[in-house]
Amino acid sequence: MTSAPPPAASPTPVDVDARIRSRFAAQPAMALIGAEVVRVADGEVDLALPIRPALTQQHGLLHGGVTGMVLDSACGFAALTRMPPDAGVLTVEYKLNLLAAGTGRLLRALGKVRKSGRSIVVAEGEAFAVGDDGGERLVATMTATLMVVRDRPGVRD
Amino acid sequence: MTSAPPPAASPTPVDVDARIRSRFAAQPAMALIGAEVVRVADGEVDLALPIRPALTQQHGLLHGGVTGMVLDSACGFAALTRMPPDAGVLTVEYKLNLLAAGTGRLLRALGKVRKSGRSIVVAEGEAFAVGDDGGERLVATMTATLMVVRDRPGVRD
Amino acid sequence: MTSAPPPAASPTPVDVDARIRSRFAAQPAMALIGAEVVRVADGEVDLALPIRPALTQQHGLLHGGVTGMVLDSACGFAALTRMPPDAGVLTVEYKLNLLAAGTGRLLRALGKVRKSGRSIVVAEGEAFAVGDDGGERLVATMTATLMVVRDRPGVRD
Amino acid sequence: MTSAPPPAASPTPVDVDARIRSRFAAQPAMALIGAEVVRVADGEVDLALPIRPALTQQHGLLHGGVTGMVLDSACGFAALTRMPPDAGVLTVEYKLNLLAAGTGRLLRALGKVRKSGRSIVVAEGEAFAVGDDGGERLVATMTATLMVVRDRPGVRD
Repeated sequence: MTSAPPPAASPTPVDVDARIRSRFAAQPAMALIGAEVVRVADGEVDLALPIRPALTQQHGLLHGGVTGMVLDSACGFAALTRMPPDAGVLTVEYKLNLLAAGTGRLLRALGKVRKSGRSIVVAEGEAFAVGDDGGERLVATMTATLMVVRDRPGVRD
Repeated sequence: MTSAPPPAASPTPVDVDARIRSRFAAQPAMALIGAEVVRVADGEVDLALPIRPALTQQHGLLHGGVTGMVLDSACGFAALTRMPPDAGVLTVEYKLNLLAAGTGRLLRALGKVRKSGRSIVVAEGEAFAVGDDGGERLVATMTATLMVVRDRPGVRD
Repeated sequence: MTSAPPPAASPTPVDVDARIRSRFAAQPAMALIGAEVVRVADGEVDLALPIRPALTQQHGLLHGGVTGMVLDSACGFAALTRMPPDAGVLTVEYKLNLLAAGTGRLLRALGKVRKSGRSIVVAEGEAFAVGDDGGERLVATMTATLMVVRDRPGVRD
Repeated sequence: MTSAPPPAASPTPVDVDARIRSRFAAQPAMALIGAEVVRVADGEVDLALPIRPALTQQHGLLHGGVTGMVLDSACGFAALTRMPPDAGVLTVEYKLNLLAAGTGRLLRALGKVRKSGRSIVVAEGEAFAVGDDGGERLVATMTATLMVVRDRPGVRD
């Protein structure tokens, strides 16, 4: 009887989806604000955040820092979809532009890899506020720079 | 009998301190993460965030997006200390550099106005992680650009 | 005989094209490096920069700061296409990500308005290096924030 | 007769000063605009750029992209002062805030390392315009992220 072949080294789509969802689920900060994974694809991760009073600033609008936090996460997980099993990513920096007030019932945060290099990954994010009527408005954009990390205990994602 | 003079138009230090603390207290998002105002001065606001498991990512480190959220707030309130009573500020954009892992018992986030113009305010932030022994390490820096907003209902801060 | 009606206040495409080209031609710094206007459209300006030894760093690659300078210009002029005749723009800040080495015979810098508000315009830029075989590679991206300026002598563009 | 000891691996201050000045002198783009090295120290490099008509935009002010180019260079060379002889740096990204118009006779651009890690260096820059009376005004700030590069042919600086 021949033994089964070893698992392939490069991640399959199913692996990637499971990896992203399990690492996301392991982040208490995402649970605190109530963000969820909506979609995972090669180089892309979409998150959703129901807007509720606890996430607002003094005028009842979604706090800009919360928008930044969700986009940062979408960009980071988008980068992670491109990493082999023995590598993770660390956010080096990000820049957020706030374009319009965050109002409505939901924030959609889309992260997408723009350039995936050996040591550095650049990802871009867009956040849309979804109104009660389902209409969407672009409210923020992000550019994030991440570093590929290998064989660092505690950062293998 | 002469009437009392009208109140001065420019804010006194006491006004500024009260204004910042009351506007900060009105932000549910800051309460959600547990941030507090430590110090208010002309062009400067220091915040503190006790680090707890609910604010971490999957490795038990403070989530970088939370660090960004607190620094964004420190920069925004630092800018607000320079605004006359009829003006507020809106964050246009910010850039965060994450320099080291956020570990320890407390995050100190210091916001400081770098340039205060007629329409635009540029503020800079530094975040320090405070260890159990009281030692501090610089973990993040921010540059934030804010817009001065006058006479806009709902944004008079 | 009635007199002809006054020209419309909002710029026509022809006006915009002429305005951008004439303001660009008035910038000695663009002439110094040899950049040229290739295309003007609503919210979009494409520039080209022939790569030559005088623009390189010590390894013979296009200097990253030159790439930034051309993209900054493409973003600024893209924003200017949206301004009425009595308004100009000032660059508040920009962020440049350098993704690959600038080699080849030409740099194409494309600026595009992402959000055009009453006071603030956000534009995005992409720079491509064109090789001798005509092949293009993305070498840099930019996000730029500009301020709308009205009735300021010397800045009416 | 014993042979002389081999040169020490870590750079001495004299080595660093000579290294920076020779690498700077090898950049045609810096010669094109006329920038010069003024001072080299551990983690710090100061440059100077005489302001002349060829470097201006349409209003006779120093082109913001030129300011960015010089600050980028100051930050990059500041990072290089911390590199061992077998390592160089590549600029990953930078963010420039333009705070005031660049007028006067000289631009001073100061680059300074903020955090020097194993793979990533973060540097900050400040640019001052020096007037005819010697007075200085802060006109721009920069944060730059650089990557440490080892053993890459053509990038050993």
